[in-house]
Amino acid sequence: MSPTSGTADTAGSRETALPTVAMRRPRWGDPNDPGHLPDAARLLATRDEPDPGVDPTGVEVSPSTIPAAVRAVIENVVGAENLTVAAAERVQHTRGFSTPDLLRLRAGDVTDAPDAVVFPGSHDEVAAVLALCAEHRIALVPFTGGTSVVGGLAPDRRGFAGVLCLDLRRMNRLIELDEVSRTATLEAGMRATEAESALAARGFTLGHFPQSYAGAGIGGYAATRSAGQSSAGYGRFDEMVEGLTLATPRGTLTLGTAPKSAAGPDLRQLVLGSEGTLGVITAVRVRVHPVPTARLFTGWRFESFDAGAHALRRLAQDGPLPTVLRLSDETETALNLADPGKLGGDASGCLAITGFEGNDADVRWRHDAAAAVLTDCGATPLGPEPGEAWRTGRFRGPYLRDPLLDAGVLVETLETVTFWSGLAELRTTVTAALTDTLTASGTPPLVMCHISHVYHSGASLYFTVAAPFGDDPLADWAAAKSAANSAIRAAGASITHHHAVGRDHRDAYHDEIGAVGVEIINAVKRAVDPDGICNPGILI
Amino acid sequence: MSPTSGTADTAGSRETALPTVAMRRPRWGDPNDPGHLPDAARLLATRDEPDPGVDPTGVEVSPSTIPAAVRAVIENVVGAENLTVAAAERVQHTRGFSTPDLLRLRAGDVTDAPDAVVFPGSHDEVAAVLALCAEHRIALVPFTGGTSVVGGLAPDRRGFAGVLCLDLRRMNRLIELDEVSRTATLEAGMRATEAESALAARGFTLGHFPQSYAGAGIGGYAATRSAGQSSAGYGRFDEMVEGLTLATPRGTLTLGTAPKSAAGPDLRQLVLGSEGTLGVITAVRVRVHPVPTARLFTGWRFESFDAGAHALRRLAQDGPLPTVLRLSDETETALNLADPGKLGGDASGCLAITGFEGNDADVRWRHDAAAAVLTDCGATPLGPEPGEAWRTGRFRGPYLRDPLLDAGVLVETLETVTFWSGLAELRTTVTAALTDTLTASGTPPLVMCHISHVYHSGASLYFTVAAPFGDDPLADWAAAKSAANSAIRAAGASITHHHAVGRDHRDAYHDEIGAVGVEIINAVKRAVDPDGICNPGILI
Repeated sequence: MSPTSGTADTAGSRETALPTVAMRRPRWGDPNDPGHLPDAARLLATRDEPDPGVDPTGVEVSPSTIPAAVRAVIENVVGAENLTVAAAERVQHTRGFSTPDLLRLRAGDVTDAPDAVVFPGSHDEVAAVLALCAEHRIALVPFTGGTSVVGGLAPDRRGFAGVLCLDLRRMNRLIELDEVSRTATLEAGMRATEAESALAARGFTLGHFPQSYAGAGIGGYAATRSAGQSSAGYGRFDEMVEGLTLATPRGTLTLGTAPKSAAGPDLRQLVLGSEGTLGVITAVRVRVHPVPTARLFTGWRFESFDAGAHALRRLAQDGPLPTVLRLSDETETALNLADPGKLGGDASGCLAITGFEGNDADVRWRHDAAAAVLTDCGATPLGPEPGEAWRTGRFRGPYLRDPLLDAGVLVETLETVTFWSGLAELRTTVTAALTDTLTASGTPPLVMCHISHVYHSGASLYFTVAAPFGDDPLADWAAAKSAANSAIRAAGASITHHHAVGRDHRDAYHDEIGAVGVEIINAVKRAVDPDGICNPGILI
Repeated sequence: MSPTSGTADTAGSRETALPTVAMRRPRWGDPNDPGHLPDAARLLATRDEPDPGVDPTGVEVSPSTIPAAVRAVIENVVGAENLTVAAAERVQHTRGFSTPDLLRLRAGDVTDAPDAVVFPGSHDEVAAVLALCAEHRIALVPFTGGTSVVGGLAPDRRGFAGVLCLDLRRMNRLIELDEVSRTATLEAGMRATEAESALAARGFTLGHFPQSYAGAGIGGYAATRSAGQSSAGYGRFDEMVEGLTLATPRGTLTLGTAPKSAAGPDLRQLVLGSEGTLGVITAVRVRVHPVPTARLFTGWRFESFDAGAHALRRLAQDGPLPTVLRLSDETETALNLADPGKLGGDASGCLAITGFEGNDADVRWRHDAAAAVLTDCGATPLGPEPGEAWRTGRFRGPYLRDPLLDAGVLVETLETVTFWSGLAELRTTVTAALTDTLTASGTPPLVMCHISHVYHSGASLYFTVAAPFGDDPLADWAAAKSAANSAIRAAGASITHHHAVGRDHRDAYHDEIGAVGVEIINAVKRAVDPDGICNPGILI
């Protein structure tokens, strides 16, 4: 239980769970290290032989609607080698990684493929491409990791000459590391793994590790308000951003004279979460931290979810906060544990994980003080083993979706966030909405839930749903998702904690911010994007 | 040095430094407990006999330009007793509390007096008054504590039929206390003292104690992004706000479904800092905390400001953070200490204050850990006496301005914020700008500086300037302030950390956010306030 029982965290060990080969659609993660169907999921399988569906790399896409003359002027900006209409690249940039996105791709549906993909090399090139798109009425979708699960990469092409995907991958420099202020200025096209590697070489880390870490990019983190598994310790991405640069069709917006200021509204918080609708984020200045020298991850068992939630609330409100703090409900606990017997003789109860990172003294004090709170709240300590098991497997969750879909199991996630006083009721109503709807469709689901992000006043709820394929899995999920959205909004909760709005949450988002809120977003968009070319149909 | 050496904090002891009688312009604070000229300031006095200037309550104001018929329809909304054109009330609502504001009032200049003052009783009444003002082209300035020091209460009346001051003081209810989520929903017209009293009666505190606490109001805190002396422990006001309601001429904006969310841009952060230009904030949902049961305030001496700043940075970046953390430069240290000899035999060096609030174990651990860091950075411990002296006197600073002005001493403050790597240079250049300009005017100043708000990546700098009156103190200060603003912007720092923009910082603010930023603010304003009646001339 002492901090020294944890291994010192190093840049090397951080990356053991990450792919060594770039992901290729539609499958998640390292092609050399694919996911395997978990035993528990075999009960839901509807096929004896796995069926991966159509290979999208062989699917024909419709001819690019962007005129060759327009492509030529864009090529003049970025270089001919940095614009492509090749089918393979267009398919690789089609939609994101939601289960509906994957189901459509497995069915050979590439109707949302962009008409071309451009790879600009600098902020100025991005700005120039934006101006050309405005001039020629071409919709533009910014792309970094492409891991959207809310339809954020499938703009509405109606009224446009075509859709241009702007992939920022060439813009992957660590522009500046300010070791005194502990900030790093990163080009937005850096993959998360590239950013961590570059920072680790200088002794620093962002501390931002969402489950999408293997694929996600810095610009996407910022545009969607990503939250990582270590949010309790390092904050959400929107809390890490101290400055940013946004290229808009009407010029460049440069923000961030100081960490905090009273100079008017905080426009950084207007750009964060704008999901490409106001322009293209080309760089961010973010907080960084020394790579921790000590860590300790341990597991805890609670009799019930509510008892565990109460304990998490005490840590969030009175401290000390771990770096990682999570609580699984009974179903998730039972399914995710290799050996549920470890939870105290039977499979009942709820598993919580606490993770502490920092220096040795800090980790020791925080762990011991948090352990006292958890014990006082009725938790049974399970020691480092479940904590380390979670830590080493924490990026593997998305690897399971492909083998599940191969086996004919519908699997998807959704998430929300509310105040502590409404959390238990929210979990009940969303679970019921998902269960009832999919049961009515003839595909009774398993619904799992966890808390993985806590705040002074509230917490997130993350749901994972698995159900056998029915006749029309897309329609079945659409009905279940709609029912969950309604339950979330009826409870007054937010439609998304960290997945963002995209197209899938647009109606619920409008309900959430109201008519005046929508008009404000529209007014800002008209001001910086009068032709409406920036990711049309997303958010608003 | 043990936490128990501090007295338990109670609601009663919190308020000992606060006025028992409402402030009356132009003098700050409790009329029964006025400020007295400090000995050190007598060196700068230019008068043998104090001269308080003109009594503004006796000054004649120009007739109200709001037609009686329009006043009558507003009275239909709020009740005839809740609208006044009485000269005394109009003078009480004239401008704010900057030194130029006070100098003008002392000279009998009440040209910015609003044409009427209205006291709405509810959000719906505010909304109705906004609609009537839009219909009749009357400029509206929201008013809670009236403590602006940046000209935020003096809208530009050009093109309007008149200026209506909307004083929210009747809207002073604690609407809801959510003890589970630890949030309180407060009507925006609550004075800070009223909010703390109402919360203390239930065992809670906001933890927001700016130097303006004796006069400030909740709506003003939100509209201007106030920061309190305990910001290290409880955060800035813009970090405390989880939800808010804004009445605009185009309808009501209600925000805050959750503490944090990925549902688009964070529109709360667009309203916070909008300074009345987008409408009237009528309620906020804010974080609250149990009234602390233990506290410990101690003093520390550093050889130099840079050594102290380095120590503060270590606490801000690696922890543990005190609840209060401040560092005075040599001049402020020497002038503010009753007995400079306490700093170790001579008056040299810089005084830092650390304050810890919480429960006993937490205060003890944080204090001891912070003390180790400070000692490691070369600090000499001075014990609780300077800490308690600062704590008990912390709201007295503004009381000194009136006797200083009476004695013919120009005294004013300004503040900025930047990243740690630029802090030392910023302090040097701003100090030089103030010193050089006022010396050139023939009124060589004392310039003091302190750090009172620290963040992971940077910190604020707060300057206090005192100089003998020259022939034209208003012009002398305008020149000094302009030079300071230029130095701040040349350093790339923010024009204000917590005083806000108002009219005084407008040009520098535009430089800070750039043309695209200004256009965004303008676009939002056009959307919610198409007639431009909301605090015109402020911010933009």
